[in-house]
Amino acid sequence: MVMDVEWVAVDWGTTNLRAWLIAGDGEVLATCRSELGMSRLRPEEFEAALMETVEDALRSNGQIPVIVCGMAGAREGWKEAPYSAVPCAPPGLSEAVTPQTRDVRLQTFIIPGLKQLEPADVMRGEETQISGFLAGQPDFEGVICLPGTHTKWVRVSDRTITEFHTHMTGEIFSLLSSQSVLRHSLGGEGWDQDAFIEALETVIEDPTRISSRLFSIRAKALLNNTEDAYLRSELSGYLLGLELGGVGRKWLDQETVLIGDSRLVELYRAGLKILGINAIIVEDKDITLSGLRHAYAELVR
Amino acid sequence: MVMDVEWVAVDWGTTNLRAWLIAGDGEVLATCRSELGMSRLRPEEFEAALMETVEDALRSNGQIPVIVCGMAGAREGWKEAPYSAVPCAPPGLSEAVTPQTRDVRLQTFIIPGLKQLEPADVMRGEETQISGFLAGQPDFEGVICLPGTHTKWVRVSDRTITEFHTHMTGEIFSLLSSQSVLRHSLGGEGWDQDAFIEALETVIEDPTRISSRLFSIRAKALLNNTEDAYLRSELSGYLLGLELGGVGRKWLDQETVLIGDSRLVELYRAGLKILGINAIIVEDKDITLSGLRHAYAELVR
Repeated sequence: MVMDVEWVAVDWGTTNLRAWLIAGDGEVLATCRSELGMSRLRPEEFEAALMETVEDALRSNGQIPVIVCGMAGAREGWKEAPYSAVPCAPPGLSEAVTPQTRDVRLQTFIIPGLKQLEPADVMRGEETQISGFLAGQPDFEGVICLPGTHTKWVRVSDRTITEFHTHMTGEIFSLLSSQSVLRHSLGGEGWDQDAFIEALETVIEDPTRISSRLFSIRAKALLNNTEDAYLRSELSGYLLGLELGGVGRKWLDQETVLIGDSRLVELYRAGLKILGINAIIVEDKDITLSGLRHAYAELVR
Repeated sequence: MVMDVEWVAVDWGTTNLRAWLIAGDGEVLATCRSELGMSRLRPEEFEAALMETVEDALRSNGQIPVIVCGMAGAREGWKEAPYSAVPCAPPGLSEAVTPQTRDVRLQTFIIPGLKQLEPADVMRGEETQISGFLAGQPDFEGVICLPGTHTKWVRVSDRTITEFHTHMTGEIFSLLSSQSVLRHSLGGEGWDQDAFIEALETVIEDPTRISSRLFSIRAKALLNNTEDAYLRSELSGYLLGLELGGVGRKWLDQETVLIGDSRLVELYRAGLKILGINAIIVEDKDITLSGLRHAYAELVR
């Protein structure tokens, strides 16, 4: 079957690559996933990695637009797409860079990330998710939280990203639960919502408590044989409590939406509820694709 | 040369083992170090690991006392030495367990660690350092801080350990600087004391700030090419600030002594100074040996 692919959308992260082959009517004809993330490629290898994924879909003649977001635009990526500085609208095609390709059928655009100078912060990829969200809700005013390894808190006003902050909570949870002395006590998959909430409340009430409570997780396992599920939920609560305390009140008096992995956004919603915030969960697992579509629309407009 | 070894002192940690061969007059005849820490040994392998280190010193007949502290007494160690519960004096020989050995010349004693039920905490090894300190200053009343991978804060009153708290600051620093996204920006060996102090003050003033400041370390490297030494010192300041905040005021209105690695105790002293505390640094790099000597004295008394 010959697919009539009109353009290709690519979310190129640090550890993997997702591509969508899209027809003229907007239908997704195929989705592809590869482990060839930015961290595994030298600049001269990106084109071949992309071709592995999309070559079958290329026409024998004529160019196909490929719209890319994420770490492919980092300094160590395919071609550096210099950060746009906030305050600004989520960057689109007019800010994109176009790496030279050997195969002339590729017309590639890499969308830049965002930078904030004070306090220093950066993002690459999330700006396109925000663009996808704003495409559907152009009049949104408030705070967008994108939970993940590096959770982003983003303020939007008048279609402009005015400020953002990254929290490493997800990465710290992962390191502590898999690499630290706590790893012995946090196995399995179970969950204890009460332990999570109690730990959250403890740290929100007094953030300094987290410092001695972390090792206490290990001690409870040794002394009381406390279950792994309880302790893992507790660790998660302590760390999210510190994050939510750090986001601060001035951020949390606005409409707040949560976008991301469904399990994670539920934890954030529960945490925000303790602070009296009713956050709205936005269900769109392909919001990055929505952002890339929005960028592509600029090209054909 | 035949050494007339009277007894052997052993500090058996998770990752390595130190042994001192000691003459009847107390002189250290030899010190030995091995990588055969507790984590690399099954229970039945401890005796052989010890013999590798001390066999040459054993007499052809007659027993030699071997006084051991540290992780050899853990559940997964040589033989479990059940924790003594605080409040109590630092445990000594009367609380020790004696693993059975194939070689009858070994008369081995493993000193137990300490536990605290609420809040849950444990130590193995530091109790012997405290014992070594108190042997020299029996009337000390106040707080002993033992900085390290897992820093211990210990309250002592009337020769009794009344309460203690462990902070994982050292391990978290190590994980973030070698395993997280921050590792790209924290290489080398330099130090920037001003960056350290400023970060400390920031977190002491408002502990929740640490949550977004950590990723900002990465962003500053990307956006401003900030030097690694500055950023590493900053990370250290943020983490120590959270710890010192967590230790709390009720602990810090007493005489405070710092015992440990000289570089690390200097950082803690600088941090405590910001809180108005003049901590005293105790210079005794073999304080563990002092504690083991104190235990041995019970045997020959």
